[in-house]
Amino acid sequence: MINRAFGQVVKELRGKKKLSQEALSFEADLHRTYISQLERGIKSPSLNTMQKLSKVLGVSEAVLIH
Amino acid sequence: MINRAFGQVVKELRGKKKLSQEALSFEADLHRTYISQLERGIKSPSLNTMQKLSKVLGVSEAVLIH
Repeated sequence: MINRAFGQVVKELRGKKKLSQEALSFEADLHRTYISQLERGIKSPSLNTMQKLSKVLGVSEAVLIH
Repeated sequence: MINRAFGQVVKELRGKKKLSQEALSFEADLHRTYISQLERGIKSPSLNTMQKLSKVLGVSEAVLIH
């Protein structure tokens, strides 16, 4: 449940930034397939991953799990 | 850095609850050695782990990374 909520926030913020999954993955130094899995809530991100994503998406880590 | 900050918040909240690492690990269904590693910031918790800890510590996940 919490992973799904997280994934939806990432997807929404990525959309607002007009970034493709590929662009986000490049900027955050993560695999595109991993971004896809996170957005679908089928992987649980580590805090390190959350930090990478938050930097690119321009929000704090807490926002991602709010 | 973010893992160290997380670990210190966990340690502080655990202390306030007067829980030993062993008691917290039991309640959160995590290994005691893993709790120790998290508190020292040498492991990066997954969001699932953060959720387990937040439930026992009585705070939201966001508080743990605030």
